[in-house]
Amino acid sequence: MTEIKSLKALTHELSRLPGIGERSAQRMTYFLLKKGPAFMDQLQAAIRDVRDRVRLCSECFAYTEQTDSCEICKDPSRQSNILCVVESPSDILKIDASGAYAGRYHVLHGAIAPLEGVHPEHLKIKELVNRSELHNLKEIILALDADLEGDTTALYLSRLLQNRGIKVTRLAYGVPFGSDIDYIDRRTLGKAIENRVEV
Amino acid sequence: MTEIKSLKALTHELSRLPGIGERSAQRMTYFLLKKGPAFMDQLQAAIRDVRDRVRLCSECFAYTEQTDSCEICKDPSRQSNILCVVESPSDILKIDASGAYAGRYHVLHGAIAPLEGVHPEHLKIKELVNRSELHNLKEIILALDADLEGDTTALYLSRLLQNRGIKVTRLAYGVPFGSDIDYIDRRTLGKAIENRVEV
Repeated sequence: MTEIKSLKALTHELSRLPGIGERSAQRMTYFLLKKGPAFMDQLQAAIRDVRDRVRLCSECFAYTEQTDSCEICKDPSRQSNILCVVESPSDILKIDASGAYAGRYHVLHGAIAPLEGVHPEHLKIKELVNRSELHNLKEIILALDADLEGDTTALYLSRLLQNRGIKVTRLAYGVPFGSDIDYIDRRTLGKAIENRVEV
Repeated sequence: MTEIKSLKALTHELSRLPGIGERSAQRMTYFLLKKGPAFMDQLQAAIRDVRDRVRLCSECFAYTEQTDSCEICKDPSRQSNILCVVESPSDILKIDASGAYAGRYHVLHGAIAPLEGVHPEHLKIKELVNRSELHNLKEIILALDADLEGDTTALYLSRLLQNRGIKVTRLAYGVPFGSDIDYIDRRTLGKAIENRVEV
């Protein structure tokens, strides 16, 4: 078939989404056409709403539709003297779902990665320091990814914040709940032994 | 995190796309937010272009951006006395890429499936009969899916068209090129033996 420009363009746009290859993108494009204009309008409207309505919370930098602070920052039942620092807004969903944390959050929007040109000044670190001074924090929990960038960032933040007399903690490394020892990698197991607790 | 309405709505819309589960849709939503407004605008514009520009060819019912006939129907180098009948517009891409066919196409937009309420009058069958009369066709190749609906449609069309003195053929069933006999299913192998050819 002679190429149809707009179909090719949409396939290209869709293939830029995470986990979507050229083939899946093409299948999506034809699916949208088959579903018709009303279906495409709904998808377009949903994208437009997100584009126009979602902004960053002025306190914690999570996503919100509120014009000032997000629902969590405004919630008086949340502990205000403890902060959980995460790399991405979506991490908040996960941590909140665990039910083990009832404080507020702070989103860095990334982790320190000098090789990729991500330095402390590109992250919401200055804002974290400001918040820590403003709210007289007791503890900051670093819930960063368990990779090189997460480690680097944790080290950087712990030095920065401990100087200010704030207790800085990290999520425990260990064996995932419900997992079979046989399937755990060497490094995780090493950390789990290192951090063993008395029963 | 308290639910953010527009993020939830976009995740829902994306999860309606083929092959996209709730988790992938959520990942896409956060990816779009991270990429920012310009990226979302591009995706929106691509959807809008497809919505506004793509229509069905008035002859073969493939997708086209032309206002009348598509590029293939207008191409004088294509054989005009042979038609290849397919279920979906995307099938044309595949058949053309094979390089084994240089005629025109006719898209049915589905296959007969009485149990799902798809009857001959819901497909572009009347239009196929009209075309066959108008163009004095020599042969119609049915390139339909190798499933129950494809078989039913092939049977229906062959009866309808043979009455009008047109040669009706189907794609050969057989062993896929480059495949290992060990991995071929029983029914395909049975068909391949049935349709064996002299070497």
